Amino acid sequence: MKLYRCERFEGIAGLALCEEPDPAPPGAHQVLVQVKASSLNFRELLLMNGAFRDWMAPNFIPASDGAGVVLAVGPGVRRFKPGDRVMANFAENWHGGARPQHADTLGRGAIVEGMLRDKVVLSQEELIGVPEHLSDEEAATLPCAAVTAWNALCQHAPLLPGQTVLVQGSGGVSIFALQLARLFGARVIATSSSESKLKRLAELGADATINYRDTLNWEDAVLHLTDGRGVDLVVEVGGAQTFGKSVACTRDGGRISVVGLLTGAPSPGEGFFTRGLSIAPIRVGSRQDFESMNRAIALHELRPVIDSVYDFAHVPDALRHLESQKHFGKIVIRHQ
Amino acid sequence: MKLYRCERFEGIAGLALCEEPDPAPPGAHQVLVQVKASSLNFRELLLMNGAFRDWMAPNFIPASDGAGVVLAVGPGVRRFKPGDRVMANFAENWHGGARPQHADTLGRGAIVEGMLRDKVVLSQEELIGVPEHLSDEEAATLPCAAVTAWNALCQHAPLLPGQTVLVQGSGGVSIFALQLARLFGARVIATSSSESKLKRLAELGADATINYRDTLNWEDAVLHLTDGRGVDLVVEVGGAQTFGKSVACTRDGGRISVVGLLTGAPSPGEGFFTRGLSIAPIRVGSRQDFESMNRAIALHELRPVIDSVYDFAHVPDALRHLESQKHFGKIVIRHQ
Amino acid sequence: MKLYRCERFEGIAGLALCEEPDPAPPGAHQVLVQVKASSLNFRELLLMNGAFRDWMAPNFIPASDGAGVVLAVGPGVRRFKPGDRVMANFAENWHGGARPQHADTLGRGAIVEGMLRDKVVLSQEELIGVPEHLSDEEAATLPCAAVTAWNALCQHAPLLPGQTVLVQGSGGVSIFALQLARLFGARVIATSSSESKLKRLAELGADATINYRDTLNWEDAVLHLTDGRGVDLVVEVGGAQTFGKSVACTRDGGRISVVGLLTGAPSPGEGFFTRGLSIAPIRVGSRQDFESMNRAIALHELRPVIDSVYDFAHVPDALRHLESQKHFGKIVIRHQ
Amino acid sequence: MKLYRCERFEGIAGLALCEEPDPAPPGAHQVLVQVKASSLNFRELLLMNGAFRDWMAPNFIPASDGAGVVLAVGPGVRRFKPGDRVMANFAENWHGGARPQHADTLGRGAIVEGMLRDKVVLSQEELIGVPEHLSDEEAATLPCAAVTAWNALCQHAPLLPGQTVLVQGSGGVSIFALQLARLFGARVIATSSSESKLKRLAELGADATINYRDTLNWEDAVLHLTDGRGVDLVVEVGGAQTFGKSVACTRDGGRISVVGLLTGAPSPGEGFFTRGLSIAPIRVGSRQDFESMNRAIALHELRPVIDSVYDFAHVPDALRHLESQKHFGKIVIRHQ
Repeated sequence: MKLYRCERFEGIAGLALCEEPDPAPPGAHQVLVQVKASSLNFRELLLMNGAFRDWMAPNFIPASDGAGVVLAVGPGVRRFKPGDRVMANFAENWHGGARPQHADTLGRGAIVEGMLRDKVVLSQEELIGVPEHLSDEEAATLPCAAVTAWNALCQHAPLLPGQTVLVQGSGGVSIFALQLARLFGARVIATSSSESKLKRLAELGADATINYRDTLNWEDAVLHLTDGRGVDLVVEVGGAQTFGKSVACTRDGGRISVVGLLTGAPSPGEGFFTRGLSIAPIRVGSRQDFESMNRAIALHELRPVIDSVYDFAHVPDALRHLESQKHFGKIVIRHQ
Repeated sequence: MKLYRCERFEGIAGLALCEEPDPAPPGAHQVLVQVKASSLNFRELLLMNGAFRDWMAPNFIPASDGAGVVLAVGPGVRRFKPGDRVMANFAENWHGGARPQHADTLGRGAIVEGMLRDKVVLSQEELIGVPEHLSDEEAATLPCAAVTAWNALCQHAPLLPGQTVLVQGSGGVSIFALQLARLFGARVIATSSSESKLKRLAELGADATINYRDTLNWEDAVLHLTDGRGVDLVVEVGGAQTFGKSVACTRDGGRISVVGLLTGAPSPGEGFFTRGLSIAPIRVGSRQDFESMNRAIALHELRPVIDSVYDFAHVPDALRHLESQKHFGKIVIRHQ
Repeated sequence: MKLYRCERFEGIAGLALCEEPDPAPPGAHQVLVQVKASSLNFRELLLMNGAFRDWMAPNFIPASDGAGVVLAVGPGVRRFKPGDRVMANFAENWHGGARPQHADTLGRGAIVEGMLRDKVVLSQEELIGVPEHLSDEEAATLPCAAVTAWNALCQHAPLLPGQTVLVQGSGGVSIFALQLARLFGARVIATSSSESKLKRLAELGADATINYRDTLNWEDAVLHLTDGRGVDLVVEVGGAQTFGKSVACTRDGGRISVVGLLTGAPSPGEGFFTRGLSIAPIRVGSRQDFESMNRAIALHELRPVIDSVYDFAHVPDALRHLESQKHFGKIVIRHQ
Repeated sequence: MKLYRCERFEGIAGLALCEEPDPAPPGAHQVLVQVKASSLNFRELLLMNGAFRDWMAPNFIPASDGAGVVLAVGPGVRRFKPGDRVMANFAENWHGGARPQHADTLGRGAIVEGMLRDKVVLSQEELIGVPEHLSDEEAATLPCAAVTAWNALCQHAPLLPGQTVLVQGSGGVSIFALQLARLFGARVIATSSSESKLKRLAELGADATINYRDTLNWEDAVLHLTDGRGVDLVVEVGGAQTFGKSVACTRDGGRISVVGLLTGAPSPGEGFFTRGLSIAPIRVGSRQDFESMNRAIALHELRPVIDSVYDFAHVPDALRHLESQKHFGKIVIRHQ
């Protein structure tokens, strides 16, 4: 089978397309999956550049996100049968509840081998069925960004209809957060630095948009849009650059879900500690979280936003496109 | 001012239209409200028939639900000013959190005087602002039925998008539960014994409907509609007649919110205790619950379903219409 | 290795002591455990009598509860190493969060093979470390009864210091609930039909005891002990016989955790639905629940109450003793 | 009656002992209370120094905390009768649930008049009964520091038995947090810069103590004491000086309850955002929180630690003692 390995921590240049024997047949409780599509997250670039090299498997197979079809099942597999369409959870061994202490923080595509390959054997407990209305390409976008967005909205205290959410920019998590927040009945305020992206965010359902390049004090604009009250929830993806502003435009007693492998250490700013805000970092989620989200996606036939689809042979091009940050929506790889 | 009193526990016959002096001016933290509209709940008939006479104030003014405009405020009132449109919370002194031990279980219109009167003085803490898009008549429908429905959906564990709710019949709580559940992104299955009502429930957004007169084993129909899994939540209003069936069509680990002053004592049926269901009786809600709901109603410009509007002089006719159970939606009284 | 199988659903008479080959060496993520001790629950008798025969594995190995030592580990095992002392979780594949839909309701010792054997191979994810201060015999008592008691106290809303709990009788769950509730800082009221057992319950920390044989209306005694308020939580183990009384002596808004494979269908009694009680059936718990409980047991060096210890050869005697219901505390089997 | 007013924002020098007419008799739902004792918090000094002067009532009566006896009740008062011993909640109009938007952030003794006076008229809804075993002096210590400590332990997710808490120093909140955490069955690690204070903290039940003057990297000592895992919860009172260290010694997925009117804006430090910590600022609590805490205090006959008791005439001396930070436990004022 064909697969990619990150042979050296040199970013895209360190990536090699390899050919290796097919995996061994599935053992007890295991499932053999033909990967049909995978998708890329900015995290892939960080990992390939060695940002977390001390915790990484050498020569790892990148990409946390993929979808495929079950080819064969081992003894004791009750959850799936050949022909079922499946995705793999980002975090290994996190089925529900709190994240297990020993779970790999970096997730699939780091210590745990990723999805940039034709075939993979996984425990039935790592797999989730694909909502019927989704194509393989669409399903491949969900494991990291969509589950993160879902948990940013409901992990600690579910968003209620009528509440207001701020989403930042047009990265994968932010677009999913916008789309999913609409299913919760929330009002969504979205920011971006590009008018054309703001237009697309509005088309996806943002109730209000702010150009943070034109409106440097965008936190004031958010306060204005909420009659001075502030939003109930921020899905914070910007890190040190945005954190203080996010604090400023969150209502007293509100919540900030912090997303991403932020390496900076933002100061929360004056007033943070007197305003009763909760901060809840989000680290993707459990299989149960994924399954809950899928029910919402299936009922509302939500369609992930796909920026572009590349053939498996052109993964380096896809990564370069990701690196350029010009995309809107997910970048997908079509296998075979 | 004009008002109604229940002079004898003889149902509608015991009700008298009276004329009494206006209330004294509002004291500290109090607000004088001109009642513009009120609405009726089946509970009014129970109370007037003496079902709970041992806990009732003698000669009480019925009706928990009303909306009006602030005429004057006493010293220390910060929450409202003259001209503001307001509603009163069903339960006195329940501002948030758990229901206080000493709160009047029977709510406004029982021990606490009700809204079938022209003017009322209330603590600013009992009052809630009216969402702008609602008429007085529409606002008057919210305090008991809508807050009950809201809490049935989210008090113990908020309903998530993609989950399925069963609502029963076309009473006030059930219609609000259907409308509000849609705002939570849930799928709604509704039952009724009337084809014309089922048609209206579908128009209001029910994803599936079941005629429980034609389909005696409607619990099986619910299971069929959920691929055998059962619903995540039942808003149970039927009591002894429906409880066992509700248990049968709730998923393992699901929840039944029990609504109403049910006097029967239904057996939960075989299997209840092995299936991990939670039962959570709902007793209307706090002012904070009401305020949360209002944000959802305002954002989505939800419109309560009004069956009919009666003049204040014709309250007995309105109650007889309520008693007939032929209505669909709330029965409202327009005060002068 | 030696093991017991339930060859026919004829209760103790259907049980056979067998000799079979040792299990195959542990595969990927698997652990080979030498079982040092197991313990018995009343549920074993129900299963052996065929109460749930339709869902059972034929010729099953009974007993959900056991403790032992790791003999060998397969590839990829990070959680344990040879020599570690371990227990197995009751429910297979329930690591945390909500109980998975496909999890075996009947738990270990039913569909999933039980612990009445010398050696067992299990996934590392099913195993939990033994608190240091516990003997093998003590550890073997925890998986079913103690985790059930723990979740009865804190699964849906953790018991707070100063709250009052009612525990019923002197079965395994009730004694653990009494001991664990003390760690939560709660006040405990315990019932029993035997003065000598009440004396022991008081020695274990019950703040008040009631002989339900002498005091038929024991719910009134509970109300009296709580100044008429009622208890905050009942750990209900009695089923149809006690449920109505439990409802009567729970405070408004309180909670009843229902434990056990109750086949009856008790009516909750008049007043249940107007008093805002929550009912939360408990079905043992997840590995994370078990781990949380262990931290409490370890910190406070809680010692399970053991009634008697039988040699592996005398399991039938142990089961007969269990059947007699004369025990106080757990009945334990010592393996070689 | 005698009372103190803060006539100028000049700290203790701005305080004046006055004589004014008794309050008017209690109106509807109001209660007249004879204040028997009050207690001081460091916050009093901040307020008197004008740290929050923009939000303060001019010429305010300081001190949020007091206890007394009911002298008379107005019409409609059901919760109390003359002779009852009572305390007032810190936050006006916060009965339960989330903190109301319009509630005075600064609490009693700032906008809302404080307890440094002989008599006060309050709404029955602001008052809480005193646990029987407490003296007036002891009861006067609870409203601000103890309720804050209680909520730091259980507001967002109750502490469970077996979990570990870090408390910092020997201020009022920290000592209460230590005492209350013991009632939750938690393990407590306490820090201080003084050996004699550490000795007293150990006597109060701290399982381990660390001298942060001797052990500059006290976060490492905390990690060592928890086998490298970190504590489950920090009750953070130190602000900018300690926050980064608190982050470092909290377990993955743990929680930091932030207490106090911290004006600094600490950076959470590297690693904060990848470790899944929740931050939950605590702003004292609701009347229901206070009542829940009282049940724990009453059951366990917990005794607040009192450093010293001053006569009402010597409030300035008491404040100077507070300012010196040499106290251990609460400084109490005995009214006539």
